[in-house]
Amino acid sequence: MSEDRNVYLQVVEIEKALARVEESIDLQGLVKTELIPAQSAAHRVTAEPVWAKLSSPTYHSAAMDGVALRAEDTFKAREGRPVTLSPDRDFKWVNTGAPLPRDTDAVVMIEHVHILDSGEIALEKPAFPWQHVRRIGEDIVASELLFPQNHEITAYDVGALLTAGIWEIPVLEKVCIAFIPTGDEVVDFVKKPIPEAGQVVESNSQVLASMARDWGADFRRYSPVPDDENRIGEAVDRAAREGAHIVVLGAGSSAGSKDFTRKVMEKKGQVVVHGIKAMPGKPTVLGCSTENILIGAPGYPVSSIICFERILRPLVFKLQRRVAPERDRVEAVLTRRVASRPGMEEFVRVALGRVKDRFVATPLPRGAGMITSMTQAQGMVSVPADAEGLEEHTRVGAELLVPQKEIERTLVVVGSHDNTLDLLANELMGREEPIRTSSTHVGSLGGLVAIKEGNAHVAGTHLFDPQAEDFNFTFLDRYLPGVAVRLFNLAVRHQGLIVPRGNPKKIKGIADLQREDVSFINRQRGAGTRILLDYHLKKSGISPDEVQGYKNEEFTHMAVAVNVLSGIADCGLGISAAAKALDLDFLPLARERYDLLVSEEVVNDFKVRTLLDLLQKDRIKQKIEDLGGYETGLTGREMRPGQGLSE
Amino acid sequence: MSEDRNVYLQVVEIEKALARVEESIDLQGLVKTELIPAQSAAHRVTAEPVWAKLSSPTYHSAAMDGVALRAEDTFKAREGRPVTLSPDRDFKWVNTGAPLPRDTDAVVMIEHVHILDSGEIALEKPAFPWQHVRRIGEDIVASELLFPQNHEITAYDVGALLTAGIWEIPVLEKVCIAFIPTGDEVVDFVKKPIPEAGQVVESNSQVLASMARDWGADFRRYSPVPDDENRIGEAVDRAAREGAHIVVLGAGSSAGSKDFTRKVMEKKGQVVVHGIKAMPGKPTVLGCSTENILIGAPGYPVSSIICFERILRPLVFKLQRRVAPERDRVEAVLTRRVASRPGMEEFVRVALGRVKDRFVATPLPRGAGMITSMTQAQGMVSVPADAEGLEEHTRVGAELLVPQKEIERTLVVVGSHDNTLDLLANELMGREEPIRTSSTHVGSLGGLVAIKEGNAHVAGTHLFDPQAEDFNFTFLDRYLPGVAVRLFNLAVRHQGLIVPRGNPKKIKGIADLQREDVSFINRQRGAGTRILLDYHLKKSGISPDEVQGYKNEEFTHMAVAVNVLSGIADCGLGISAAAKALDLDFLPLARERYDLLVSEEVVNDFKVRTLLDLLQKDRIKQKIEDLGGYETGLTGREMRPGQGLSE
Repeated sequence: MSEDRNVYLQVVEIEKALARVEESIDLQGLVKTELIPAQSAAHRVTAEPVWAKLSSPTYHSAAMDGVALRAEDTFKAREGRPVTLSPDRDFKWVNTGAPLPRDTDAVVMIEHVHILDSGEIALEKPAFPWQHVRRIGEDIVASELLFPQNHEITAYDVGALLTAGIWEIPVLEKVCIAFIPTGDEVVDFVKKPIPEAGQVVESNSQVLASMARDWGADFRRYSPVPDDENRIGEAVDRAAREGAHIVVLGAGSSAGSKDFTRKVMEKKGQVVVHGIKAMPGKPTVLGCSTENILIGAPGYPVSSIICFERILRPLVFKLQRRVAPERDRVEAVLTRRVASRPGMEEFVRVALGRVKDRFVATPLPRGAGMITSMTQAQGMVSVPADAEGLEEHTRVGAELLVPQKEIERTLVVVGSHDNTLDLLANELMGREEPIRTSSTHVGSLGGLVAIKEGNAHVAGTHLFDPQAEDFNFTFLDRYLPGVAVRLFNLAVRHQGLIVPRGNPKKIKGIADLQREDVSFINRQRGAGTRILLDYHLKKSGISPDEVQGYKNEEFTHMAVAVNVLSGIADCGLGISAAAKALDLDFLPLARERYDLLVSEEVVNDFKVRTLLDLLQKDRIKQKIEDLGGYETGLTGREMRPGQGLSE
Repeated sequence: MSEDRNVYLQVVEIEKALARVEESIDLQGLVKTELIPAQSAAHRVTAEPVWAKLSSPTYHSAAMDGVALRAEDTFKAREGRPVTLSPDRDFKWVNTGAPLPRDTDAVVMIEHVHILDSGEIALEKPAFPWQHVRRIGEDIVASELLFPQNHEITAYDVGALLTAGIWEIPVLEKVCIAFIPTGDEVVDFVKKPIPEAGQVVESNSQVLASMARDWGADFRRYSPVPDDENRIGEAVDRAAREGAHIVVLGAGSSAGSKDFTRKVMEKKGQVVVHGIKAMPGKPTVLGCSTENILIGAPGYPVSSIICFERILRPLVFKLQRRVAPERDRVEAVLTRRVASRPGMEEFVRVALGRVKDRFVATPLPRGAGMITSMTQAQGMVSVPADAEGLEEHTRVGAELLVPQKEIERTLVVVGSHDNTLDLLANELMGREEPIRTSSTHVGSLGGLVAIKEGNAHVAGTHLFDPQAEDFNFTFLDRYLPGVAVRLFNLAVRHQGLIVPRGNPKKIKGIADLQREDVSFINRQRGAGTRILLDYHLKKSGISPDEVQGYKNEEFTHMAVAVNVLSGIADCGLGISAAAKALDLDFLPLARERYDLLVSEEVVNDFKVRTLLDLLQKDRIKQKIEDLGGYETGLTGREMRPGQGLSE
């Protein structure tokens, strides 16, 4: 198979890649003009200048409710020496918007009119000519330029168009994007499939469809095509026939033996870029035929998003001669070092929050296959191609993926993971002014560091000190000396061995971890659960070397449970709720206190306060207990040193 | 009629008005839940927490193209001492995304594999277990919380939903807005009417329709209803039956005898606010029935926009539990004083541009009936209720109505008005990177001041000095001493008397302005055309007092022409192009030089440079001449003092 592989062309920067596309095809000529009703024109772009057909107002009109009269009849009016006018002969009542009666040239507001019993009126102030009159053409003069060509029509403009008697307007047709998913492994979401091993539910098309709507483009998805050069080619032809300005081939853009995108594009037109200097996003192919732009988008979800947002989006806006709005940015402090490969611009997704007076950015997992690294991010940080990474504590400019207002209302939780945090996150979103939670799982010790450095509002921690027979406080003394913090209990929870349903290997306890036929999946260094394991191993006289898989680490209870579910490991240490969620068996080993650590400085922040208030509620305690493996006797209470598990 | 008038309730601030609506109706209960396909869910809001149904990946999968093998088989590999492996028995070729073959636990990238002639492979580096493998659940674990309730689904989220096997999702239904235009004067744009005096083309509904699309709301417009309390009431009932969460009555919200909105609302439910402390926008009525929110929107276009954006929009977002994005703001220097009525928040539309290193904001006309004050604005400045106005040169925060990038690409033209400027504005928008023009008409002297103060890139000026028999330079010496400026000719144009078609009053020249039966419409003080008039009056020995209408002022040639067209005046002084545009007759009086004044500091700004380059082109000169009344012999040339009209 290796001989069938493509070779990447020279990998180029995104800017250069876009420039090459623009050089290779006449963008301006690609999109035609169409005539559409003016009322549907918002966000469309004028293809020609638009000249007013009607003036506005089309007649002299009263700008106030009151009386219309001849101004000169009032010139002598003074306070205490009113001028009296007769109805019909001298004045007429008018409502706002009414045409000015013949031979009148001013309006006096009703508030300034004294009505006499005779029906006459008295005025104590002169009117000046044309006062409170909207004159013909005051707003728009027929024949005047309303909008130049290439102007993006706004909602306001729609009002001006109709007012100026423009019922139809020539605009650029919408950019039409066709998406053709490819790959033998792809299954179609429309069939609501249960994917088998080797199958992937195609979803990138729908991410692009959602974006295309926001960009004002039309989008058409074709049925997935297997890895077959001819069939892919036929789909490209069909998309072209059906009017696509841009044809996107989903996946198959890399250099593997089953990657046909480039070959198809070479047959249909020319390839101008194979590979962009972006991570994720590198395996992007760009080209064109005589009638449209051809794009090979990577298959990994985050790579495809980079391709959509950094390549497709500017092209769509350019085709529409529109200015693509830029995302807002904030300056944030990076909470962890980010290594990066020189020569590639890297797009790092970050969890953003405002802690005290600054924004903090915590890097999220970086795999191109991790769609949750996009959905859990509030920001994106670019590591330039010439950098080897970004150091911890660097101030970075982060593009915002959510409104800044929402980030201000985000509770930042960093530390140990517990399923209860998801439950609370959902509750916080149920408030009238929802509070969003950004949750990063770095273990209990990582949480302590985050609080110390002001990188989080709250840290989940469950560090057991066997000597003190207490939780967390000893570690605060060691790692956060002199830092004013407070500790509130979330719950007492059950940790134990998670084993497959039915416990096929008959594991009974910690001693079984020595067995040669038993493999274990561990938690990462610094995790409270790992410390708990080490304590129990020591108590049982077992050396870590004797435990198969001791060095294999996962970052959450759920990930440990998945390892067990999928047979990667025979058992792992974790919480009961994780076992229950995946329908696995659970052998209780210990009860432990899971606390929330809060810096004194933010304990009255409304988000923290709301969280702590939630924990007082019986309704919430019940929900926590319903997860299984939790006790709530201490829940919501402030902890004191030496308390251990006692109430 | 006066006895039928309503009385405003106490006028309240916008914030308070919104709070009253929220107190009077259960917003949370108004919007129901519906189940929709996940792929259509972008921008919709989850009604419940969403839990993953599938893990991702659903199987261990190769993360690279290469070979899958058992890591332990490679542990001894070293540079120069390769490990050799046999196909099928020891390894299998895999493409990215392929399921990991049974009994393998690592992938080696194809780039690190030496293929031997035998079909075997040699590796010079050990693989570690699970390298380049995406493990089950690495991204998403089935049963995990994907999104909490009240979460606005993004394009990325759509990808995560489909990946997690969520085919349908419970979301809040869209907010449905019904708009009922009211008023005897209203004509329906769908009939493409030619409005008669007293008729107004209804357009506010379509402005709101365009906004509603942007807000993610459904919009339904009902046919216009005349000023008839019962019929308006019936339309409100129908909108409620048809599922509107918000019913908006267009116009009729003021306190006039034909304003029925409040009465109808009192009958259908309750009125909680009549009158908001906002200019424009004051005559807004807010209330509710048991089943929806009722809003009486003002009829003037700008007033209605304030009502839509400041009242409706926050309510729509609140109903959807979404955070309404805020407009970007810039700090800008106000170029003119803005007076404002204390006790009312005033929304002033401004033309924004970046001149040299600062943003400048020039207030636009303030009438609530001026839709063009919205369409020509790039920003909005709020004058707080407790202020009496804003002084010239104040630094103000301006809300952006267009992307900041577009403002950076806006050429700011302030000064005398000429139709050629519209022609050029259209040409500038035809470039590959369109340049927008912001044009404010304050007369030639106003333009000189704008250049002096750095408030404009370019000023149009045509100031004639009879003593020097020259244009503009004398005035530069007087008003801009010591300021380095340059002067380029736009065109030589013909000024003359604009008279109705057929010249019914047989006006022959300036002497006729003395006639008792001839009324004149003048230009504002500081306008070059006014100075030209004064020169000719003086030359003819006519005093301004002898000219009827001398004190009636307009700001543009087109406005002068409209005054003549509509019979407000019998004649006015203006350019030939304005007469031609409105099909009026024109009596030539003088040729004059219309120049563009540019500060030396910005003459190389790309926008100015592009404008000046355009004026070199024969194609443009031809278009200018085609307007009628222009000569282009000097067009685009830099002018020197004393040159007059000579080439």
